[in-house]
Amino acid sequence: MTVPRCIAVDWGTSSLRAMLLGDGGEVLERIAGPKGILAVPEGGFAAEFEATCGKWRTAHPDIPVLMSGMIGSRQGWVETPSVIAPCGFGDLIRRMTEVPGSDGAIRVMPGVEAVGPGGTPEIMRGEETQIGGIVARHGVRDGVFCIPGTHSKWVQVESGRILSFATFMTGECFAVLKTHSILGRLMADGTDDGGAFRKGLERAAAPGGLLHHLFAVRTMGLFDRLPPSELADYLSGQLIGSEIEGARALFGSVAEVQLIGGGEVGARYSEAFGAYGVAVTLWDAEEAAIAGLWAAAAASPTK
Amino acid sequence: MTVPRCIAVDWGTSSLRAMLLGDGGEVLERIAGPKGILAVPEGGFAAEFEATCGKWRTAHPDIPVLMSGMIGSRQGWVETPSVIAPCGFGDLIRRMTEVPGSDGAIRVMPGVEAVGPGGTPEIMRGEETQIGGIVARHGVRDGVFCIPGTHSKWVQVESGRILSFATFMTGECFAVLKTHSILGRLMADGTDDGGAFRKGLERAAAPGGLLHHLFAVRTMGLFDRLPPSELADYLSGQLIGSEIEGARALFGSVAEVQLIGGGEVGARYSEAFGAYGVAVTLWDAEEAAIAGLWAAAAASPTK
Repeated sequence: MTVPRCIAVDWGTSSLRAMLLGDGGEVLERIAGPKGILAVPEGGFAAEFEATCGKWRTAHPDIPVLMSGMIGSRQGWVETPSVIAPCGFGDLIRRMTEVPGSDGAIRVMPGVEAVGPGGTPEIMRGEETQIGGIVARHGVRDGVFCIPGTHSKWVQVESGRILSFATFMTGECFAVLKTHSILGRLMADGTDDGGAFRKGLERAAAPGGLLHHLFAVRTMGLFDRLPPSELADYLSGQLIGSEIEGARALFGSVAEVQLIGGGEVGARYSEAFGAYGVAVTLWDAEEAAIAGLWAAAAASPTK
Repeated sequence: MTVPRCIAVDWGTSSLRAMLLGDGGEVLERIAGPKGILAVPEGGFAAEFEATCGKWRTAHPDIPVLMSGMIGSRQGWVETPSVIAPCGFGDLIRRMTEVPGSDGAIRVMPGVEAVGPGGTPEIMRGEETQIGGIVARHGVRDGVFCIPGTHSKWVQVESGRILSFATFMTGECFAVLKTHSILGRLMADGTDDGGAFRKGLERAAAPGGLLHHLFAVRTMGLFDRLPPSELADYLSGQLIGSEIEGARALFGSVAEVQLIGGGEVGARYSEAFGAYGVAVTLWDAEEAAIAGLWAAAAASPTK
């Protein structure tokens, strides 16, 4: 029978996912909760962690707890100083920060900072662990990673090290424009056969820029060129296309991308990359985080 | 003494501006109200107009009323069928729509439609009257007009005719991102010496695209590279710069632009065009609308 070896916790802005891992890194038990760091009152992280993982801690008092994500930000449990890219995953593991009072048993992954291609600061927390997991478990040591989300990350990896990266506010802009701008007014729920999404992608590749293209989300609805049920997909296509256009300007016309993201968002980005003729290797985001935290546990001095 | 010759009404989404014009087109009296068309209940336009301009109508029952702006939209007093560009201002004046029951005394300017450079529909209501006014009163018959706003319009005019145009959602994106996205979180009120605005302009001209650049509004604040009081100006510079970049891709690198817009927004765009080495002729938006409605009155069959 496999022996519990560590507790892996991916604790982000809007969710907490905790896993009890066996001695091969496999998931023995899993707990998912909606209590992301924004839902935890100040000073309440120890209690929230105990409520979620206390039974594992009681049953297995000697195994370490490895955490990644926004839990290491200023708004989290303990602020972990970021590591400056370029950096390897080993650098990050060595710089993990202990949660005060845990006697080294609970450690949090540092974020990564970089000077972006335009000279402005870049920061990530959580994605570095997913990438580290794929590097460690699957041996993908070179390539461009795309991690879609509220703030999508594009990361250049060379010889297993994070070289540079850039953020795109794709997910947040979609949500904000749909909910709060005039573009949402004509939208209705429904399923798209993919046509509107592809039209949005094509639009993003045309001259004029995003601020111009967005207005077409309104006029294509006003002039009955797209039904209300397809306008959100058209907007989504424009934004994802715009992200890919921008990333190509920064990272070059990559022939292949390592895409970390499951479900709907993974499918959308896969389709978008297909339209650009970019080959996709799709990785599950949770599995990647587990692999990264497992690698941290394996390299841990207290293992 | 000058004789009142017409009532000019610029009735938009969020404001109403009415002017009593003398027989040289000069403003004799002026009323400005906050009752834009969105603030008027359905069926309430006649009453609102009477409340605003009734005293002029009583005193001068025989002069015509000329209106422009969103009052001619589906949500306005009377929906005026749009005219398809290319079109001259004379075409628009001839296609003005009478307000039902006014016996021809109240007429509303049609909007203009076009197929945009990317094949998507374009529409304007109000800007065509401002341009027509500048063409008619000042003899500017060729050039590119920029009319900043919630939805900025760029309009190519040739031989006094509107050839084509494109919309940019610059003003609305600024408002929505500042109010509803994470970018507004770190912002504080304050005055910028222009440095942050210019940094935003420079950022917009760099590779990576708007979705990427926007994230720097957050990180420049997070890493104390810009004070909270300058982040809104940095965002504004990014968006206006992005608009100009996009417009140059559509209309070419114009050496001169006719800018319609007063006050703060006119100053910002003037500075932005200066940074691009584009010469600006600045026109007051209200004066332009008055000139356009005056030209309509002068050409009016019932004058």
